[in-house]
Amino acid sequence: MTTVSEYLFHRLESLGVQHIFGVPGDYVLDLMDVLNQTPINLICNCNELNAGYAADAYARVRGLGAVCITYGVGGFSLVNAVVGAYAERVPLVVISGAPNSSVRKGNLLLHHTTGDYNLQLAIMEKITVAAVNLTKASQAANQIDQTLAACLYYKRPVYIEIPLDLVHQACTLPETQPPSSFKLKNPETLPEALEEAVEEAVDLLEKAQRPVILAGVEFNRFRLQNKLLQLLETTGYPLATTMLGKSCISEMHPQFIGNYVGALSRDDVCQRIETADCVLCLGAIMSDMNLGVYTANLDERKLINANSEKVKIKHHFYQPVYLGDFIDGLIAKLQKKEAETLEITPASDVLSTTFIPQPENKLTNRRFYERINHFLEDGFIVIADTGDAIISTMDLLMPQETDFIGQAFYLSIGYS
Amino acid sequence: MTTVSEYLFHRLESLGVQHIFGVPGDYVLDLMDVLNQTPINLICNCNELNAGYAADAYARVRGLGAVCITYGVGGFSLVNAVVGAYAERVPLVVISGAPNSSVRKGNLLLHHTTGDYNLQLAIMEKITVAAVNLTKASQAANQIDQTLAACLYYKRPVYIEIPLDLVHQACTLPETQPPSSFKLKNPETLPEALEEAVEEAVDLLEKAQRPVILAGVEFNRFRLQNKLLQLLETTGYPLATTMLGKSCISEMHPQFIGNYVGALSRDDVCQRIETADCVLCLGAIMSDMNLGVYTANLDERKLINANSEKVKIKHHFYQPVYLGDFIDGLIAKLQKKEAETLEITPASDVLSTTFIPQPENKLTNRRFYERINHFLEDGFIVIADTGDAIISTMDLLMPQETDFIGQAFYLSIGYS
Repeated sequence: MTTVSEYLFHRLESLGVQHIFGVPGDYVLDLMDVLNQTPINLICNCNELNAGYAADAYARVRGLGAVCITYGVGGFSLVNAVVGAYAERVPLVVISGAPNSSVRKGNLLLHHTTGDYNLQLAIMEKITVAAVNLTKASQAANQIDQTLAACLYYKRPVYIEIPLDLVHQACTLPETQPPSSFKLKNPETLPEALEEAVEEAVDLLEKAQRPVILAGVEFNRFRLQNKLLQLLETTGYPLATTMLGKSCISEMHPQFIGNYVGALSRDDVCQRIETADCVLCLGAIMSDMNLGVYTANLDERKLINANSEKVKIKHHFYQPVYLGDFIDGLIAKLQKKEAETLEITPASDVLSTTFIPQPENKLTNRRFYERINHFLEDGFIVIADTGDAIISTMDLLMPQETDFIGQAFYLSIGYS
Repeated sequence: MTTVSEYLFHRLESLGVQHIFGVPGDYVLDLMDVLNQTPINLICNCNELNAGYAADAYARVRGLGAVCITYGVGGFSLVNAVVGAYAERVPLVVISGAPNSSVRKGNLLLHHTTGDYNLQLAIMEKITVAAVNLTKASQAANQIDQTLAACLYYKRPVYIEIPLDLVHQACTLPETQPPSSFKLKNPETLPEALEEAVEEAVDLLEKAQRPVILAGVEFNRFRLQNKLLQLLETTGYPLATTMLGKSCISEMHPQFIGNYVGALSRDDVCQRIETADCVLCLGAIMSDMNLGVYTANLDERKLINANSEKVKIKHHFYQPVYLGDFIDGLIAKLQKKEAETLEITPASDVLSTTFIPQPENKLTNRRFYERINHFLEDGFIVIADTGDAIISTMDLLMPQETDFIGQAFYLSIGYS
């Protein structure tokens, strides 16, 4: 027999979740007891907001994260972490215990609630791409699988609420594994739109003398790093990334020139991007901060802007076109340009100078980050908090993909 | 000229708010600059949840509290404090900065948001009794006054969102002071329902030999403490309070017997309440915790249960009947019973024994609270956190009204 809670944890485990973050509380104790019997490790945090941030970071690195909290006081304390994950497209599974279904139908006021037992679900519905309150053990497996599929499809948070009485109920197992209700698929592409978009983009890029690629966070989220590497190899183009997309591939790559954040960028990076005769912007969230607080100077007439759902060239759209398909199309059609015409100054040449201690010098912000840079090697993860820290990490050279974590768009202080 | 922000702070000040709690952030800096020019003190907290809790406690003591935070990261971090205030009927004004109205109409993604500029308002609408986004300076004063009136009428949180461009705009002042849109009134009463309710209640209470009053938090919220004192004087009945209603009047009162929390209560308090032949329950929120986690044994056939909106006797309701009017009716009709028949053991006799240090004794939870009790005097405020602390404070004798603060129903750990 598999219970509803066992099924949930089994499915998460099969999707690569080895750690779940959370805070115990009255309505989630049974569920956590079950969790402690599974191979998944429960990591307890000092409060729910922190648990949410930790699970969010785990999801950025591992592709899926989960946080488990109690009802009311737990769920409502988590809201800011969930909104942050929604904003930055982080696949985060929020699991909440809940009072017994029978009690919820009555008029009794239970602690940790306002007496409105739909309130937490109603709020979570607004800040997730799928939110479900499990009410029948016979439907639970199906609901769990659909919800997890939505999380992985949209790369955004989902919410699963499990009343106490459902935790230990036997669950009707799906007939196949993976279950038919769990369909892992890529975002949609309309083949005709894709063909036109690739044709127009290739035409613009081939005509350009000094094109450049600006890559964003969707390479991490949709695990498209290898396609980006292929595109770099095929074309020879230089690459910059947004701050949110920082370390979407190794920053030691010889075509990587730096992080672009408008006028906040290193001068040579800003100059190279803004004087390019064609900017191929891929998978970036175009927010105020990502664009250097409005200082970015990207000419839309020279801009090809593709994300997970659509391609925008100049002022028209091709939709639906999935980023991965668009890049495949470009790789198939684009020619390699000669390095000498492309003006590539590798960031690894500029930033990875050996740090020399100078006892007579003052300790400055710049010297501090130069020193940190000196220490970074494979296997390090750098987590930068909002403010000076995240801006200064532009000067850090991350050796591996996905080893930099920061809320570069939502920018909630305390995230780290 | 009075600006929108000046008007808001002026109105809060005139309602007794001398301190506003908050955390600065990009979208609220201008508003806080204005606040710093007013006689109101801005108290900055280390995060929004704490600011919300502090403003909630201020409202419990002073009758109205306010918290001022930035958009998105600020508002969403505050949710649990607002829900707690909603659950426990605390008049809390949430003031949030917001991006410029013009920017919000465009497609630009601003940091601290998901790009949905109605999201924070939509969530606050679910957890407050009135939520408004100020959009026109000409209507702002009216909207502010209606929102504040709702806060004071329902004794529950309200939400006011002020876009950056509204902060310094001149505001159309109301013609009268207090403004006609700001009507402070008590909850409704239907005179015929009141008359019947009082008649039936008086009949039951006069026939009873050993009636008792169980008072709850609405005496604090609706400032009805004096009516309770009058009722005690008129009737001579003993009084217990719920934990949430703790210190609704001085616990040194000779008719006060203790805090009633079902089987968690002191034995003599539990026995006196549960063997009463009529329990007059006034202004209490009947939650699981207030009732001792389901251990309360209150016979509904002997129960008169009145709150701010209605009176329930046995299994029927009189509605709308406001608590204050109901108590006035009782005071006018009830006779004084003799103390000897009422079996009153004053809590002040039981609990205020002098603490004698006994060096050879172990330090126990009980000894700790006895020691604290020894120190309490007028002017002390005791704030108890959720868990053992709030349960143990049953043994503390609070000398003045409203000097005990704890989230005895919502029970969020960390509130204190």
